[in-house]
Parts: sequence; C-alpha cells; structure tokens
Amino acid sequence: MSRTSGGLIERLNQGPVIGDGGFISELERRGYCEAGPWTPEAVIENPDAVRQLHKEFIRAGSDVCQAFTYYASEDKLSHRGNKAGVYGCKAINDAACKIVAEVAKPAGCLIAGGLSQTPTYLEGGENSKARVKEVVRAQLDVFKENEVDLMILEYYEHIEEAEWHIEAVKEYLPGVPVCCTLCIGEDTDVHGVPTGECGVRLARAGADVVGINCHFDPFRCIEGVKKMITAVKEAGFDKVHFMTQPIAFYTPDANVQGFIDLPEFPFALEPRWITRFDAARYARVAYEAGIRYIGGCCGFMAYHIRAVSEELTAERGDYLPVNCINWGKCLEKHTKPWVRARASRKYWEELNPATGRPYSSSHSKCDGWGVTVGDESLKDDTKS
Amino acid sequence: MSRTSGGLIERLNQGPVIGDGGFISELERRGYCEAGPWTPEAVIENPDAVRQLHKEFIRAGSDVCQAFTYYASEDKLSHRGNKAGVYGCKAINDAACKIVAEVAKPAGCLIAGGLSQTPTYLEGGENSKARVKEVVRAQLDVFKENEVDLMILEYYEHIEEAEWHIEAVKEYLPGVPVCCTLCIGEDTDVHGVPTGECGVRLARAGADVVGINCHFDPFRCIEGVKKMITAVKEAGFDKVHFMTQPIAFYTPDANVQGFIDLPEFPFALEPRWITRFDAARYARVAYEAGIRYIGGCCGFMAYHIRAVSEELTAERGDYLPVNCINWGKCLEKHTKPWVRARASRKYWEELNPATGRPYSSSHSKCDGWGVTVGDESLKDDTKS
Amino acid sequence: MSRTSGGLIERLNQGPVIGDGGFISELERRGYCEAGPWTPEAVIENPDAVRQLHKEFIRAGSDVCQAFTYYASEDKLSHRGNKAGVYGCKAINDAACKIVAEVAKPAGCLIAGGLSQTPTYLEGGENSKARVKEVVRAQLDVFKENEVDLMILEYYEHIEEAEWHIEAVKEYLPGVPVCCTLCIGEDTDVHGVPTGECGVRLARAGADVVGINCHFDPFRCIEGVKKMITAVKEAGFDKVHFMTQPIAFYTPDANVQGFIDLPEFPFALEPRWITRFDAARYARVAYEAGIRYIGGCCGFMAYHIRAVSEELTAERGDYLPVNCINWGKCLEKHTKPWVRARASRKYWEELNPATGRPYSSSHSKCDGWGVTVGDESLKDDTKS
Amino acid sequence: MSRTSGGLIERLNQGPVIGDGGFISELERRGYCEAGPWTPEAVIENPDAVRQLHKEFIRAGSDVCQAFTYYASEDKLSHRGNKAGVYGCKAINDAACKIVAEVAKPAGCLIAGGLSQTPTYLEGGENSKARVKEVVRAQLDVFKENEVDLMILEYYEHIEEAEWHIEAVKEYLPGVPVCCTLCIGEDTDVHGVPTGECGVRLARAGADVVGINCHFDPFRCIEGVKKMITAVKEAGFDKVHFMTQPIAFYTPDANVQGFIDLPEFPFALEPRWITRFDAARYARVAYEAGIRYIGGCCGFMAYHIRAVSEELTAERGDYLPVNCINWGKCLEKHTKPWVRARASRKYWEELNPATGRPYSSSHSKCDGWGVTVGDESLKDDTKS
Repeated sequence: MSRTSGGLIERLNQGPVIGDGGFISELERRGYCEAGPWTPEAVIENPDAVRQLHKEFIRAGSDVCQAFTYYASEDKLSHRGNKAGVYGCKAINDAACKIVAEVAKPAGCLIAGGLSQTPTYLEGGENSKARVKEVVRAQLDVFKENEVDLMILEYYEHIEEAEWHIEAVKEYLPGVPVCCTLCIGEDTDVHGVPTGECGVRLARAGADVVGINCHFDPFRCIEGVKKMITAVKEAGFDKVHFMTQPIAFYTPDANVQGFIDLPEFPFALEPRWITRFDAARYARVAYEAGIRYIGGCCGFMAYHIRAVSEELTAERGDYLPVNCINWGKCLEKHTKPWVRARASRKYWEELNPATGRPYSSSHSKCDGWGVTVGDESLKDDTKS
Repeated sequence: MSRTSGGLIERLNQGPVIGDGGFISELERRGYCEAGPWTPEAVIENPDAVRQLHKEFIRAGSDVCQAFTYYASEDKLSHRGNKAGVYGCKAINDAACKIVAEVAKPAGCLIAGGLSQTPTYLEGGENSKARVKEVVRAQLDVFKENEVDLMILEYYEHIEEAEWHIEAVKEYLPGVPVCCTLCIGEDTDVHGVPTGECGVRLARAGADVVGINCHFDPFRCIEGVKKMITAVKEAGFDKVHFMTQPIAFYTPDANVQGFIDLPEFPFALEPRWITRFDAARYARVAYEAGIRYIGGCCGFMAYHIRAVSEELTAERGDYLPVNCINWGKCLEKHTKPWVRARASRKYWEELNPATGRPYSSSHSKCDGWGVTVGDESLKDDTKS
Repeated sequence: MSRTSGGLIERLNQGPVIGDGGFISELERRGYCEAGPWTPEAVIENPDAVRQLHKEFIRAGSDVCQAFTYYASEDKLSHRGNKAGVYGCKAINDAACKIVAEVAKPAGCLIAGGLSQTPTYLEGGENSKARVKEVVRAQLDVFKENEVDLMILEYYEHIEEAEWHIEAVKEYLPGVPVCCTLCIGEDTDVHGVPTGECGVRLARAGADVVGINCHFDPFRCIEGVKKMITAVKEAGFDKVHFMTQPIAFYTPDANVQGFIDLPEFPFALEPRWITRFDAARYARVAYEAGIRYIGGCCGFMAYHIRAVSEELTAERGDYLPVNCINWGKCLEKHTKPWVRARASRKYWEELNPATGRPYSSSHSKCDGWGVTVGDESLKDDTKS
Repeated sequence: MSRTSGGLIERLNQGPVIGDGGFISELERRGYCEAGPWTPEAVIENPDAVRQLHKEFIRAGSDVCQAFTYYASEDKLSHRGNKAGVYGCKAINDAACKIVAEVAKPAGCLIAGGLSQTPTYLEGGENSKARVKEVVRAQLDVFKENEVDLMILEYYEHIEEAEWHIEAVKEYLPGVPVCCTLCIGEDTDVHGVPTGECGVRLARAGADVVGINCHFDPFRCIEGVKKMITAVKEAGFDKVHFMTQPIAFYTPDANVQGFIDLPEFPFALEPRWITRFDAARYARVAYEAGIRYIGGCCGFMAYHIRAVSEELTAERGDYLPVNCINWGKCLEKHTKPWVRARASRKYWEELNPATGRPYSSSHSKCDGWGVTVGDESLKDDTKS
C-alpha cells in the first residue's frame, strides 16, 4: 500500500499520518480572515488564497487536508454581529469542500470535513443538546453531499459538547471515520474532568481517533494525549488511534484554557513561535508516544509541517517533501563561510535560540476568568 | 494627487511610500525557495505562489511591488552548484517582471526592478569593476524591456559595490529613479566606512533614495539611516529621500554583519520575530526620523506591512487596507470575555510579550569571521 | 506573655516564631567555612566570626538561634578526608553551644541544638539503624550538657533517617521540643514517599514541629508544607506545629533534590537570590498557610530575616527590628529626587527586577543521577 | 620586597594591589547602616560589626583597607534630617580610622582615608568652591592626625568637584598618595565631559592613581578606565596608575548615572549580583587592561575579593588567601557524586548561570531625571 491510498484508518494502521497546519491564523496574517470572529468566509471572498494555502501544506507532506470550515456553524457565523452570517453555513461549508477537493484529490490526500464548538452550547439553557445537534446537522448535510473522507471534530473545551457532536456524526454520516480532539491540557477539561477520562469518553462516544488540538504547545499536548492513551487502552478500546494538532507557540505558562488566557493572545505570540527543529522534535516525541495522526493548529505554517514530514521520512516509506532543508545541509551553498559551517543536524539540534528581547520575560501571568458554560458573559449580548 | 498615481519621487514628495515584505524568506517557509542559495527560480517553477504573495502585500497596503529578482544575477544563480543556473538570468528576471505586472498595475502600485550584491564582487581580482558591471547589465537589459517604474538596489555590504551598481543603472536606465540600500549597521559598512559617509557616497553616485535594508532590526536600521540623513543633508543633497527595509527580527546583539552572524540565522530566528505592534511602532519612529520609503525585508509578512499601513493611515490620505485589526478593536467579537477585554490600543501598546522560552537567553554570542572581499573562503570552491 | 519569654511551644501557640538564616553558606562567603565539606569547625577556629553572625540575626528579629552544629556528626567531620575531624564532634558541638549562648540568652532568644543527615545512613548496610543512632547520640550528649531549649533536626532526604533521629532525641533528651524538617519538594522524598505522608510520619515519630528546609525556594517549600499540613491534620495530630526554612534562591526548575541538582550549585546561584521583598512576601504567604515557625536556610542573610520580621510586625506584638527599611520610606533621605520617588511600599511590591544578564536563561537543565541510600557512589571512597 | 611592605606607589609599581569591597551596602544588609542616608555612624554605634567586616576583606586578600568614612562630611551627616549629624564629622572619621588601624596594621595592609562627593557641591551657588573645601578640610584634619597611608577620593559625578577635592588634599596632606575615582560610565561625566578627558583632568589636578568606582558593573567600569588610560598616557602623565572599584551588579542597561537610575536600586539588585567567577574574570580583564589597583564597591563581599586575589595569585608572588575554592576543587569532598563532578575550573568557567526568574526580563528601563548641580530638587528641602 502506498502512502496515498486507503482510507484514514488503513493509513493510520500502517504508519504516521501527517495533518495540515492552522488555516484561520495564517489567513488572518495574510489578510483574508478577521481576527476576533475567526470565521472562514474567505472560502467565498478569496478562494484563491485558501487554495494556495492548501497547496502549501500538500507540498509540505500533509496526508489529510481539512476543508476550511472552522467555526462555520450558523450560530457562530452571525455571533456578536459577525458579518459572515450573510453567506450562511451552507454556502461556506460547501465552498470549503469544493476548494479543498480541487487540490487534495489529485495529490492523493484525504479530505476532512470539520466541526468545532458552537456558541449555542456555551449559552446552555433548556433543550441545549437538541439545539446544539440541530446546529451541527446543518453542517453535516453539506459534508454528506460532498462525500468527505473523514470528519475532524476539534476545539472542544467541554467533553460533553464533544460527545454530542460525535453522536450527531455517527447518526448522520455513518461509516465516516471520526477524529475528535479537545483543546485541553494535561490535567482536565474546563469542568475538571481528568484528561485521561475525557479520552475514554470520546472513545466510548464512538470516535475512531481521539486526542488534543490547539491551546497548548506541542510538548504539553503530547503529555495530555499520553494520559488519554493510557486511560483509553486501560478501558479496552484497542482499535482507537491517537492524534494531536497543537499550536506552534510555546506555552509553558498557560493555565486551563491555554494560550487564550495568555496576555499575548492573539496578536503578540511571535516570541513563542516554534522553530522547524522544535517541530521535528515534536514529530519524533509524538510518534514515540504512540500518536499516529500528527498535525498542527494555529501558527503551524508549511515549513513546520514540512519539518514534521522530514523527521518521519523513514516511517513514511522514505517519502520526502520538496524543499526540505535536509537538517541544514542546504546551507552548504551559502555565500558566507561561517554560515556554511552551520550545515549540519548537530548544529541545529544543539542550538538554543536567543530571543533578541532583553525587555521580555519568559513567562507571563495568565488572564482567565474561569467562566464556563451558562455564564452570562458568554452569551451574545449583541443580540437584541 | 491620489495615493496611486505619479512616479516614485512624486509620491515620496507627497507622503510616505510603503514597500513590501521579504519574498525569499517567506517563499522558503511556504516551500518554494531553497534556503542557502536564496535564489528566485520560483518565478518559473511556481509562478502562482509568487503571484499570491504579491497580492497579499498589495492587499496590506504596499505602494511599491518589487519584482522577485533577488540574487538573480547570472553568477549567483549558478554559485556553488546552485541549480537555478539552468533557467538563467534573463528568463528569471523576465518572469519576475511579468508576474508582478499582472497584479501591481491594476492596483496602481509602482513596479521595481532589483539588483543586489554579486559573488563576482566578493571574489575581487583584476578588472573587478568591469566584470561586476557586466553581470549587472544582463539584468538591466530585462528591466529596460519590461519598463519598470523604479530600480531598487539593495543588500550591499560594501559601499564600493553599491556605487558601481548605481553607476551601471544610471548609464543603462537613465531617468529611472534609483533607490539604494546597504545592509549595514549604525556604525560602518564591512570595510569600516562610517554609515553617514556611506549615505553621502550613495547620493553622490546618483541614488535618488538612500538607506539601509536587511541584516538588522527596524530600530537599529532607523538609527543607521538617521546617521545617513544627517550626513547627506550636511553634504547638501537636498532632494535625496530616505528609506529602510529592515528584517522583522530583533537583533540587539548583532555585530557588523547583522543577523547573518547570529547563531540562529537562518532557521531559528522565530523568537526574535516582531509583532504587528512592533511593526506599527517602527512605522511611526521611521516616519518621525524623516524616512519616507518604509518597507520590510526578511520576516516581514503581509500582516506586518498591514500594521505599517494602518499606523500611517492619516499620513496616507486616510487610506486603510482591508482586514486591519483596528488596534485590537476586532476582538470585541471574540467569544471569551477576557479576550474581549483586550480590544484596545492601550492594551496592545503596553503589552511586553513573554517569550515562552525559559531555557533561552535574550542575547546570543555572534559568529563572524570578519572575512571580506577577496578572501579565499568567499570564492566559489565548487567551481573546477 | 512577651515575645521573649516561654518555651518554643508556648511561643508558637501565641504567634509566629522567626528562625535565623543560613550559617554555613554565609560563613563560606565571609571566608570561614570550606565549600564542599560544609562543616562548622569555624566555631573553634574563628569564634568571633560565628558570634557576629548570630548577633546579626538576633538584631534582625530571630526568636530562635541555632547553635552552629550543622553536619557536625563524627562521620561527616572526617568524611572524604575532611580536616574538621581533628577537632572532633564533641569539641565542635560544645563550642557552638557556648558561642550561641553568649549572645542569644541576653536577648531572650531560644537556643536550638541541631542534627542533620549523616553519611552513615547513606552508606546503608547491616545494623544501619544502630550505627546511625550511635553517631547521633554522640552529638546529643553535648546538647544535653548544654541544656538547649529545643532541638532542630533538619536536612533529611530520607524520611526513614529522620524518624530514627527523632527516636534518638526522644530517648535521650526527653521533654525537649523537637522540630524536624526534610529537604524535599512538593511531591515526594527521594524514595517516592509523598510529602504529605512524610509529614504524618514525622508527627507519628514524635516531632512537635514538622516541615521542610533547604533545597527549594520559599514558595515551593510552602507548597510542600501545605501538603504536610493537610495530611497531618487529617491524621489527627492536632497539636503539631509547622515550619519552613527554605533557601533564598529561586528554584522553579529544580527536580527531586532541589538546588543541589541545578548546575549553578553551589557557586553561581547569585542571579536566583531573592530580594527582601520576596522574603516579606514569603513570610506573609507562609503565615497565611498556617506555618508558624518561619526561618531561612542557605542564602538567607540578616536583611532577609529582617524583612520577614518586618512583615509580621503586627502578628508579633508590634515588635520591629532595628534598621528596617520601612518598605522603602528610608529613601526619603536619598540625595537623588528620582530615588526619593521610590520611597513607597507600592513601588517595591510592584517592581519585577531585571536580571542584568542578557546571556542567561531563566531555567537550567538539572543534573541528578538519582542515586540514593546504599549506592556505591555515595560511599566514602577516600577511606582505605 | 614583600606584598605587605612599601607604600602604595611602590606596591603598585611592583604588581597588582587589591582593594576591599563595599562597606556601606554590606553593613546595611547586616543591619548596621541606614539605606537612604548611607552614612557610616556604625563606627560609633557598632564598632565590632565594622571591625569584623575589615577582617573579612583582609582575610580575602585586600592590600588596602579603607577607613569606613564614606559620606562622612558634616553636610551629609545631617542632610535631610539624617540623624548621624549628632555624632559629627570629627568623631565619626576618627572612630573609623581607629577601627581600621587595629586590624589592618598587624596584617601589613595600607590604611586609606576617604572623601566623597558632598551635598554642598550639588547645591551650587556663590563661593561654592570655598564652601566645598571647607567641608572637606574638616575631614582631612582627622586623617592627618591618624596618619593614613593614602587618601581615596571616590564617587564623584562631577569632574570639577573631584578636582577641588584633590586640590584640598594636596594642600593639607602633602606627600600622601591620592587615588581619585569618578562614578561615571564609558562616555562622559554627568556634564558631558568625555571619560578620557576626565582622567586627564584628575591627573593634572595631582592624583597619583585615577579611575572609576561604583555605578557600573566591572566590565563597563573597565571600558571607562581604558579610555582614561589612553587619554592620560597620550597627555604624557607617565607615572599615573589606574584603578577601578566597580559595583558587583550587572548593569548592561544603565545610563549616565549607572545603577542609581535602574528601577531596582537599591533594594532589588539581587538578580544582577556577580558570581565569584565573574569577579575572577573581572580581575583578569582589568589587569590585562593595565589597571593595577583592583577593588570593589557596593555588592562586593569578601568572597568576591577572595576570587580577585585567587585569580591574581601568580602576579602577587603566589600569595593565596585562606578558604579559596581552588576553582571548585573543594567540591571533591561533597557527598553527592554529581556535585563532585563539578570540581573543575572548566566547569565553572563555562557555566552560564540561569536566573530562576521566568517572570523577569534581562534589561530594565532606566529612570533618571537628568538633574544636576544647582537644580532645586537636589537641595535639602528639609532644612528650614
């Protein structure tokens, strides 16, 4: 079997599957998404920009391409006056599926539809589950039509909401593999459910691949997934696979809600950005921990995913993406002799980069008001 | 006169002119350029990727678009076994001009052809000047054919080589405005010629706009250009304008050759990356110093240029690019109340971002072997 | 009852009791102790220097003065060729008791005899307990003769050894209050016994005051003692008091054996030194956690203890030591107006001091070979 | 000639002369001096404490002992309500001389009387010079009576005031060698007189030894003295010697008035404290720069001076003070094997200590109101 054939589960059984990087944050930097709402109306407004980003990740070695449907539930598209509501859930999800299909299919990549947390859940109230599932079904209709290869349910802070979403997918898209990742840390979700137990509940709800995405740096996410691995195996779910798609920013100082609580979120995270060598180390540590779906979230650019691919070349049947730096060997063609002297893996692995910021500390004090589902402040007060 | 009419000098006389960001480093991250050689064969191999990047900078407010012709001299394209030599200088420069024209012209942006330092100069030897000018003329032929609006000569460590290039442009492309920037620091070029004197020599050689690009962070580049401003004005060149296109990485610890000498160059500079607020402050400080051409080099992505544009909105006739964050006001639509509390300019201006790197120091010890023109180690030892 | 009357337990029942600071490290800096062996032969060689240091801590507000008997067991005095063996255990312990009595008694301070871990325990082997108790009894004979007010048993990494020492004191010095502190962290002793359980075992063995000293910074020590408080109270030991005497160096990055494992130990800890405001905050946080015996270990100088005393002035019947800085008010007499502007508690409480070290990181990678009792490398290979 | 015979100039001609450390700051930490006024009434109130500190520096290898007469001019002793005025200038200076003589003479150390800047100068006004010299003469009377071996005039921010003081010493104590150090940086004194020129003016006024003390870290002070050396030699003063007595705190970020301007002054400088290895490196770099009088100011404790002595052992006729750590060899007797592994010079020389402060930055923003002689804010507004 080649790297580019078979469904998700077959590929995972065979070796590592590389995800893609963070679309919403990268397209914000490029000028096509609005910070704050973080919704994907760019699929309608600037499809070329979205297509180009898919191409970069494919080129970098991604095996799965996620349709750019993040936060594309109807309630979120119009949340707090967000203008994306004018396009509507159906049009946005459909455009996202069409764009990704164009470039992913010829490359042999799998196409993933996506769900994520909804404002409806956070508002709580009566019949919450029914209302959440209704919101979700509107998205699933589109994914059904577009015949996605798998579903990625991601960015849940509440294990309960994730369970409801899994349930909805199982009902509406039977047979489609479900990956589900929470955006939680090593300890608990925001309600205090231990991370290992969260993993078990995801598996029990029917997820084929479980794990953690966003909110924390690669190494903290891996620590969390390791707890899931232990608990899920103990609970007897032998066929479940594990995944992680962390952010590309170091967060040693983040609390329960991760980088959201850091004062630098979302516009001053640059000093925390991981290097490509950090990304390679992430790939290795994740793989050794037993994680088989290895991707990225906010801040993961093509070169980070490329480093992940490069690190796992042997495990992927010697597949190597273009423009790899070959651990610095490429520098042999540099004009300066002292830069040529850096053309080795050893040099880059041992380097501990300076920050260039003598007025910055390494840790921040976290914000975080500890509010959660049902809290007044989470309701959309822009609605009349 | 509108922001999008008139030639370079007219526009500079009227107010700030915003440059674009760093193509070679961004396209390397995206997977289209090779680190080490740093040559622009992507214009032939992946024109869509280059076009897309031009579009992003235009969208971010750039007034000048530089054809992606960096390091595209014949001697560099084949330097040390670099494979770009197969395309050749003419084809690459021509493709670059065609791509930029497609998107820049409709947007009313000026198109710049480009020259930069050549290996031929560094090798020294007899008839060096004649050989350097020959190399340069091959590029200028293409720019003449493509009728560029201006020439940007950039990335010279040696004032002498810059003078020769200016001379060549003046001879071959009479009437075309010439911008020339050295990649030097506040003190001297690599031969010890004081920075102020370098500015005077550029002006005397015929440059219409003089300044500094690459190698140092925005604030160090501004300090250097300030010395040029003082010296050039004292020398009586009243009509000369000033420019800077710094890197987007903090370099308080860099020596004579800037970030090249830092051990993190080129693959571990992430912790030094400036934020969009640093970019805005850069725009303000540069403008107040009398610099009128304000752009970016390596590491400047679209969102950095967008921050420069946003900061200078008033000075540019209230022109505001799309997707500006409006100093964080956009966060009013965020789902978390404590993130909504960050929706103010004051918050972001006062924030001193942490690095998330407790094992990193703020300064590095520099490399730098102090070798310069004529040194054996600078010769292309891959040639037989 | 005044602050300077009553025995230890009476004083603890009434309010906070302030300990003294670290003798061995301070006398090493002053030139009277040898780094490496860390034994107190200075009591014989330079009694004036020891007496002066006692006077400084009394002046700073200490309620208990510890005879300078650290590591003064016979086996340690001659360990690995240590020259202190020539004086012998009896002479050193006796001289230490006489010196402290001279200055502590007139001041109304309590006098503590001391025990700490012994090489004999670490060597393990048959009849280990009997041999350890024999070593300890030689010291206890001297404390009995000198009629100390209390015993401080400190610096144990192994809960078992601490239990044996408590047992020995209970047998030989019945009626003398026993304080016992381990040098462990928040989690476990070096054998993996949880910190809370260690506290319970100390109480069960008969200690009147239990806690943690040395190895970790004030705030990490408090976290450890908090676990002891919870566990000891749950176990029903209602009359037990709690104490801590931490080091005066920040150790966020230390592992099981604390600052010993940090590469900076023992000669390059300066950047980690706490300020007097850190010491004041330590006093407050410790007091609020329910800790009543609050002192210091290595690195605590007179001014740190003075800050502890000053912070707890109200709780100690308005006793204030001389030369307090009154939270900076003293600066009102400074010659420079901008220094006079710092004459407020608010200024100093809010100040986050810079390190002046742009080449230093905030964390270190720990050493630590994980060896423990019975390991070959812990035996005295200098013995034939 | 032995290390302990001959006058100052003879000793300097022969090799390095080691000064002592900072009394006022150390005695404040020990509880005997008041921060703010920084005056030496401890010589009367607690002579034992002062004597002990002299003994420590002698033990650490100091060749010169400075009578503790810092800031002991009549106008400073009563400045802004300072209570030291009750003792008066004569009594304080005399007591200081008597204490130092007791311990320095038997040890063969030279005894230095001292002068420093006076509030009278800062207040400016008519007849300023006459009034300043009158203040100074009251102190000199005492030094004459006590037959000091040399005079150290130190801590001047204004070259002019230093010149007046030298002039006064030359008139009143003819034949006594005069050392004079300004507390300025590499660039200028607070009036903008270049540092090199300041050195020349000190030499021209009659100082036998010139240099810099206090305000900046060792390496910045050396840079300043190097400028003096160049200028003084160029001006033809061949017999002048050079000295420095820097603070023991790193100040890379300090401006014109040094650590006074840093927000951490005077109570939160701990993270900046140099290690003993920094002190040894300081000794070596100073010696190689041609500086022959090498001592310390605020923050220099006995162990720092001991490290200076140890580093210059060979240059001082193999004299080695007691309790040297022998570059870590002493650790061979440590109980833990991984600490014994640190028993080498290489280990400690290569170590770059971490700060343990993840919330601290390496640089601070300076205060500094730029006020100087004659400014209203410098006058003693506590006087009626």
